Amino acid sequence: MPMIIAANANAQGSHVGEWRHPDAWDRPASNIENAVRLARIAEEGKLDLLFLADGNGVRNMDKPDLFAATSPSDRPGVFEPVTLLSALAMVTKHVGLVATTTTTYDEPWHVARRFASLDHISGGRAGWNLVTTSNPGDALNFSHDAHVERGDRYERAFEFAEIVKGLWDSWADDAFPQDKASGRFLDPAKVRALNHAGKNFKVAGPLNAPRPPQGHPVVFSAGQSETGKDLSARHADCVFAIEGTIERARVLYKDLKDRLEKYGRSPDSLKILSGVTIIVGETAAEAQRISDELDDLVPPAVGLDYLSKMTGTKMSGYPLDGPFPDLSGEHVGPTGIGKAIVAKALEQKMTVREAYRSILPQMAGNLFKGSAKEVADQMEQWYRQEACDGFMVAAPVVPVGMERFVRLVVPELRRRGLFRTEYEGRTLRDNLGLARPANRSFSPTAKAAE
Amino acid sequence: MPMIIAANANAQGSHVGEWRHPDAWDRPASNIENAVRLARIAEEGKLDLLFLADGNGVRNMDKPDLFAATSPSDRPGVFEPVTLLSALAMVTKHVGLVATTTTTYDEPWHVARRFASLDHISGGRAGWNLVTTSNPGDALNFSHDAHVERGDRYERAFEFAEIVKGLWDSWADDAFPQDKASGRFLDPAKVRALNHAGKNFKVAGPLNAPRPPQGHPVVFSAGQSETGKDLSARHADCVFAIEGTIERARVLYKDLKDRLEKYGRSPDSLKILSGVTIIVGETAAEAQRISDELDDLVPPAVGLDYLSKMTGTKMSGYPLDGPFPDLSGEHVGPTGIGKAIVAKALEQKMTVREAYRSILPQMAGNLFKGSAKEVADQMEQWYRQEACDGFMVAAPVVPVGMERFVRLVVPELRRRGLFRTEYEGRTLRDNLGLARPANRSFSPTAKAAE
Ligand SMILES: Cc1cc2nc3c(=O)[nH]c(=O)nc-3n(C[C@H](O)[C@H](O)[C@H](O)COP(=O)(O)O)c2cc1C
Ligand SMILES: Cc1cc2nc3c(=O)[nH]c(=O)nc-3n(C[C@H](O)[C@H](O)[C@H](O)COP(=O)(O)O)c2cc1C
Repeated sequence: MPMIIAANANAQGSHVGEWRHPDAWDRPASNIENAVRLARIAEEGKLDLLFLADGNGVRNMDKPDLFAATSPSDRPGVFEPVTLLSALAMVTKHVGLVATTTTTYDEPWHVARRFASLDHISGGRAGWNLVTTSNPGDALNFSHDAHVERGDRYERAFEFAEIVKGLWDSWADDAFPQDKASGRFLDPAKVRALNHAGKNFKVAGPLNAPRPPQGHPVVFSAGQSETGKDLSARHADCVFAIEGTIERARVLYKDLKDRLEKYGRSPDSLKILSGVTIIVGETAAEAQRISDELDDLVPPAVGLDYLSKMTGTKMSGYPLDGPFPDLSGEHVGPTGIGKAIVAKALEQKMTVREAYRSILPQMAGNLFKGSAKEVADQMEQWYRQEACDGFMVAAPVVPVGMERFVRLVVPELRRRGLFRTEYEGRTLRDNLGLARPANRSFSPTAKAAE
Repeated sequence: MPMIIAANANAQGSHVGEWRHPDAWDRPASNIENAVRLARIAEEGKLDLLFLADGNGVRNMDKPDLFAATSPSDRPGVFEPVTLLSALAMVTKHVGLVATTTTTYDEPWHVARRFASLDHISGGRAGWNLVTTSNPGDALNFSHDAHVERGDRYERAFEFAEIVKGLWDSWADDAFPQDKASGRFLDPAKVRALNHAGKNFKVAGPLNAPRPPQGHPVVFSAGQSETGKDLSARHADCVFAIEGTIERARVLYKDLKDRLEKYGRSPDSLKILSGVTIIVGETAAEAQRISDELDDLVPPAVGLDYLSKMTGTKMSGYPLDGPFPDLSGEHVGPTGIGKAIVAKALEQKMTVREAYRSILPQMAGNLFKGSAKEVADQMEQWYRQEACDGFMVAAPVVPVGMERFVRLVVPELRRRGLFRTEYEGRTLRDNLGLARPANRSFSPTAKAAE
C-alpha cells in the first residue's frame, strides 16, 4: 500500500500572507479558474484527492486587521464545497473529491443525496468529511441562539452518519435494470425504505438516487476528542489528523487503529492522514527564503490578531519583542491547538513576534520545510514509523507551492517506492485501498433476516 | 425582446413511455454523459436556460406498475439539481442553469450559499426555482410526521426568499479589492450582517461568499394559487406556468403582470414561461407517428396508474374501453391539474384508455404537436397574444426530441424574428432582459439611511 497524499484544494494557500506574494494568484476570491488549475496540478501529480475544509459563517469580524487581510481558514470568498467539487469533477478524471459538510446544521437526506449525486457525476470519486462544526458563530445562521452543545453535536453526528449510510443503501446495486423490452425501469424488490426513527431524526427514505458507484462515498472525520475518535472508529474510512510532533502523531495513530476492533473492523480499513504544510525549495536555503518572504508579508497587527485567534486570547497588549507571556489559566482554543502553541512558545522562549511568525505558514499542526530530499525524509519517517498512512498537504502559497511539491517532492517519493506512478483503480476507494462496503439492506445476511 | 426558451434538462423525456423508445438513451438513470449531451444541444440552439424540477422523495411506491416503469416527474435515478448544474457549468458557456430547491425543507443560508456558489462558478448563469414542495411524502424525510400545512409553507417561503436575497446582498460588489500592495484583501466597510429575526428564521449573516455576479441569481417560482401568485409578484423574476389553453394562460399572464404594480415593479420585470411538451416531425404525419409510437410503449396497467396519480383517484376498477367516469365529488390532484384532466375527458367523451393516452406525453399543461411550421405557429400565437413571454420546453423523448426541436422549430422561429441568433449578453439576466438588482445594503438609499 503506497502512501496516501491528499491536496488541500482551497485555492488560497495556508500561509496568512500568501495572497500578497508576487507568485500568488491576483484575484483569488471565488475564482473558478484557479480552482480548476489547482485540481489539475494535483491530478498531474497523481495525488489521491482534493480536500475542502468548510464552515458556514464569516469569522474574525471582531479582529479588524486580520479580517481585512483574511486568514487561511476564514476566507469569505470561497465556494460551497460540493458545488465546487462537482464542477471540478468535469475537468478531472482520477483525483478524489472530498468536501466537508456539517452534521450539526444540515439534514441527513440532503447530505446523503448531494454526495450520492457527486459520486455518480464523478464516477465514484466522492468523499464526505463529516464535521460537527468548529465555529460556534455558524449557529447564528441556522436559527439557533448559540452553538449546539458539544455532547449533543456528537450524539447527532452518530445518528446522522447512520442515516446517511442507510440512505445510500436504499437500492441494491442492480436495482435499475432499465430494460426496454420488458418495460421494467427499476426492480421494486430491490428498494428498501429506511424508516429511521431516532432521538434526533426521523427519515423514511428511500433515497431518490441509485446506490453510489462506491457503495458509500468515502467518509472522512477529524475530531480528536474521545468521542471524536470513537466516531471515526465507528463511521470513518479516513481521518484527517493534526499533530505537531511525530511522537504525538504515533500515539494518536495507534489509539485510532486500536479502536477499530470494537466495531469489527481491521486496522487497514481506516486511513490516517496527517495535516502538513510543505515549504519546499530546490535547496533548503531556497525553502527558507520562500518562508521568510511570506512571513514578511504579514504586518504585526495581522500577526497579533492571528495569534489571538489561534490561542483564544487577546495578544495585542503584549510588547512585540518581549517574551511570550505565560497564559496558563486563560481560555485557550477549542481543540487544544491554542494550548500547543502556547506550550511551544514558552518552551522555546519565543518573543511574541517569533510566536506569531511560527504559526503563520500553517493553521495548525505540522510544517515540513527544506529541500525535496529533506521533505521526503520527513514524510518517509512519519509514514514508516506509523505516525500516519499518508498526508493532507497544504501549500503555503498557491499554485506555486503545490506545483513545487508535485515537481520536487513527489518524484523523490516515487524513487523511494513510497508513492504511485499510476492511479491504481477507477474509484477513490480503489486508489485508497478501501473495500466497497456491502449493502446493509441487501447483503446475504440482510436477505436471510427477511 | 425575443421569446424566451427554456429547456427541461431532465435527461429523461416527459413521455411516460419514452425511455423504452429505440431512440432513447439506453441507461438514463443518473447518467452524467446524457446530461452533458442534452445541455450541449440546448446551448447549440442558443436556448436561454436549462431547468431542473425537483423533489426530495421517492413516489409511486403504492402504484406498482407505474413505479416499476417510472413516471417522468418521479424518476428516482436523478441527480441533486445544483450538483448537476455545477457540473454542467463547466461544459457550457452561455446557457442559464436553473435548479429547483424547496423552502419548506431546507435552510435559507444553504440555499443562498449554494446558488451564490453556482453563480460564481458559472460566471453569472445561475437561477433558483423556489418551490414549497408539491409531494407531501417528502416531509417524512425531514423529521416531520406530515407535510407542513399549505399556509405555513407559503409564510415560510416569503420569509425565506427575503433572507436569501438579504444574504446575497451581504457584500458590496466591490468589497474584495484583494490589493497585494496594501494588504487589504477585503474592505470591512463593505460588508453588512443581516441580523434577520423573523417568525420562522433567525439568520445573522453575512454570507461567506462575495456578491453573485448577477447580484441575485434569477429567481423562478411556480405556484398558481393566490398566495403562490403573490409570492411570484413579490420575489420572482420568472414564473413557470402551466395552463392547458391559451385563454386560461392569457388570464394567468395578465393576473401575474397586474400584481407587480403593488410591489413597485414594471410588467417587464417578471417573465412568464409556459410549460409545453413539443412533438415535432418533418411533417405533421411524422409527429403523429412519433406520438403514437410513444403511447404504444405504455401498457394499460402503467397508463391507469398514471391516470390515478394525476387525477388523485384510483382508476384501475374502470373498464379500459368504457366511458370515462364522472368523478365529481372525488378528491382530485393538488394543483387543479387532476380537475382539468377529468373535465377534458368528460367534455370530449373519452374512454378511460383515451384519457390515459391523452396525458402520457406531458405531465400537465400543454402539448404542441405537428410540423415545424405548425409548432412555430402555436408558439407565435401564444407569445403574440400575451399568453406568455416564452416557453419551458419539454421533449417527449431525449435526446432526439430536443435535437428535433432545435433543428426544426428554432430556425423557423428565427426566420420569424421571434428568437435570438446569438446570446445577447454574458449572464442569464442579460439574456432574459432582466436588470441586475441593486444591493439593498449598499444602494445610495441604504447609505443615506445610515
Ligand atoms: C484536522 C481537523 C480538521 C477539521 N476541519 C474542520 C472543518 O473543515 N470544518 C469544521 O467545521 N470543523 C472542522 N474540524 C473540527 C471538528 O469537526 C470538530 O468539531 C472539532 O475537532 C472538535 O471536536 P473534537 O473535540 O472531537 O476534536 C476539524 C478538526 C480537525 C482536528
Ligand atoms: C409549473 C409548475 C412546476 C412546479 N415544479 C415543482 C417542482 O419541481 N418541485 C416541487 O416540489 N413543486 C413544484 N411545483 C409545485 C409548487 O411549488 C407548489 O407547491 C404548488 O404549485 C402548490 O402551490 P399553489 O397552490 O400555489 O400552486 C410546481 C408547480 C407548477 C405549477
